Amino acid sequence: MCAQQYPERLTRCSQLMKEAGLNVLLLTKPSNMFYLTGDGRLCAYAMITQDGKVALGVPQTDVMDVKQLAHFDHIVGFDDEVGMIHSIAHNFEHFGVKEGSVGLEYTFLTQSMMGILTHPHAKPAAIIVKDCTHILSELRIVKDKEEIKRIKAAAKVAVKGMKAAVGALKPGMTESQVAAKAEFAMRRAGAEEFWRTYVSSGPRTNIAHGFPTLRKLQAGDLVMIDIHPIVNGYSADICRTVCVGQPTAEQQTAYDLYLKAQQNTIAKVKTGVGMVELEQTLRQVVKEGGHGGHIFGPPIHGVGIDFEESPLPPGHAFFHGEKEPLPLERNVVIAVGNCGLYTGPWGVRVEDTVVVSLKGPMVLTEYPRQLEK
Amino acid sequence: MCAQQYPERLTRCSQLMKEAGLNVLLLTKPSNMFYLTGDGRLCAYAMITQDGKVALGVPQTDVMDVKQLAHFDHIVGFDDEVGMIHSIAHNFEHFGVKEGSVGLEYTFLTQSMMGILTHPHAKPAAIIVKDCTHILSELRIVKDKEEIKRIKAAAKVAVKGMKAAVGALKPGMTESQVAAKAEFAMRRAGAEEFWRTYVSSGPRTNIAHGFPTLRKLQAGDLVMIDIHPIVNGYSADICRTVCVGQPTAEQQTAYDLYLKAQQNTIAKVKTGVGMVELEQTLRQVVKEGGHGGHIFGPPIHGVGIDFEESPLPPGHAFFHGEKEPLPLERNVVIAVGNCGLYTGPWGVRVEDTVVVSLKGPMVLTEYPRQLEK
Repeated sequence: MCAQQYPERLTRCSQLMKEAGLNVLLLTKPSNMFYLTGDGRLCAYAMITQDGKVALGVPQTDVMDVKQLAHFDHIVGFDDEVGMIHSIAHNFEHFGVKEGSVGLEYTFLTQSMMGILTHPHAKPAAIIVKDCTHILSELRIVKDKEEIKRIKAAAKVAVKGMKAAVGALKPGMTESQVAAKAEFAMRRAGAEEFWRTYVSSGPRTNIAHGFPTLRKLQAGDLVMIDIHPIVNGYSADICRTVCVGQPTAEQQTAYDLYLKAQQNTIAKVKTGVGMVELEQTLRQVVKEGGHGGHIFGPPIHGVGIDFEESPLPPGHAFFHGEKEPLPLERNVVIAVGNCGLYTGPWGVRVEDTVVVSLKGPMVLTEYPRQLEK
Repeated sequence: MCAQQYPERLTRCSQLMKEAGLNVLLLTKPSNMFYLTGDGRLCAYAMITQDGKVALGVPQTDVMDVKQLAHFDHIVGFDDEVGMIHSIAHNFEHFGVKEGSVGLEYTFLTQSMMGILTHPHAKPAAIIVKDCTHILSELRIVKDKEEIKRIKAAAKVAVKGMKAAVGALKPGMTESQVAAKAEFAMRRAGAEEFWRTYVSSGPRTNIAHGFPTLRKLQAGDLVMIDIHPIVNGYSADICRTVCVGQPTAEQQTAYDLYLKAQQNTIAKVKTGVGMVELEQTLRQVVKEGGHGGHIFGPPIHGVGIDFEESPLPPGHAFFHGEKEPLPLERNVVIAVGNCGLYTGPWGVRVEDTVVVSLKGPMVLTEYPRQLEK
């Protein structure tokens, strides 16, 4: 990432902090830290002041590594949780922040982590705590050129992973082994990491979060494969459903319906369209096909550093600490088709990563959409 | 798992709930739900009453699947977050619980999830909220025969994963590709899943959480590989550090010191010994070798459904909502060597999964411990 990105991002962050009345942000979510500083990792934090200064607290072991990767003004290493608490107090003091409010990530922090970050030995008592989830989402929602480039690279890797998994499908192999094929291919193609792979088969295609099990594929099974590689810190999201053998007429009809709903929705993606309109397009097609009660989960979500991020549809957004999404802007990236259609004995899902542009949708995950292998 | 396990576990749970003054538990952590009911998944919850009754709330799509896997008295499917909230209210009503206290998992729940579970439309206002982390940890800490069997199976898979990764090491391959080798081998050997793989190389071996990157291995690099497969719901934990080429004398000396510290600690593992005593053994050896300031992180942690669980050393435990661990009992399973020794330019770590028995340690992860490949 170009080094001047971070000052620019911090300037936009300052503006949003002022509007929200936040004096300081205290971030621990790796993706948020990565966006603002160039490095995000576990057991670390970034303190951001309203005038755009950055103090990092990281494990003592990681100081040298972070110095090479991150944009920051001040860095402290700590040995354990007590050290982390004291380093937070040190940074409040370093920046002369004694009152006002600090923004924490309510959608990421566990209760026990909240306890560490707001410990009386960490945070001055006069400073109140607020949720800052929506600020980071607003900052990250429109992608710059370099980000789009990285998401495109991740999409290419996702397609290679899907090809390897679908190509390997045969009766007798376990769901876990299907996942292995996709993951191996993604790492070989240049993914440094991936988010948890979903592979479900047969009756398990009807469940919402189908993580792979030791179930063996049987002839005639539907298999649902949902993968999300990470390439240079950015993700892509693709899902395909494929039949090991010959699908039934009922399965083919449901698949065709869902694909039509997904494709009609993608066709409407462009600058200025609303998330609600897109969601309704998908739901309407499925409803007209007689499967209105068979959708589960948000049909669309954003894609970026996280494979599921803002924008989220309004209902879902509310419970994830987000504001209602504004009409889509150019270079927002979304995954369309996330929900799936679940009939009871089996389900189908097709999902693609799409860039919002002035002219229309730019689909990044081009891989055949067909139920028969 | 034998079906009668769950009533027995629920009886023990009831006893601990009475001692803690908790009328109901409302669990969402998959591993905790899995332990008490036989099924644990995302976006679901288990409500447990003090007399051992279980109500499950799961996505509507998952009801049939959960019915086949779980032990429960009552199950409700929901369509979205609002449905989840209403189903919680329904279950409080179903069990006639109008006052008292509900236990929530403070070490797992984000602020926003806390908001859903304690929403005024979910939880009766008269019911107060307490942390129940330590209850589940106490329940799960001593493993039964079937659990030990599963952890042993996971350990065998871990060894196969390590063998594949170490066998493949050569200059030019990326850390991510090393991880791919381990993960592919683990899935092929029978893992349904794995926790995130750590692979770090060269200067990156000095960082605390070395997730794989696109860094290419160079001749002479140390490579640290830490893997944790899941087999039938249970995990194992193994870490090895290996040199791609000839280690320096300094590296060999540090490695030998850390291995000695780890092995001396393992030798002391038996019924009745304390976590602090074990931790001090490891620290003392490292200190005597002149690397006292180079340890980071808890040297020992429990292993079970989660690859990192109770028992944790006291300091670490406090910040994770746990009570101080009692002396080790028979059939507690721990990973010894989790901390690592970090010199600055590089680090070394050797970690093994060990069962506590009356006679001494039973090491499950037998794979060569040598720096030279």
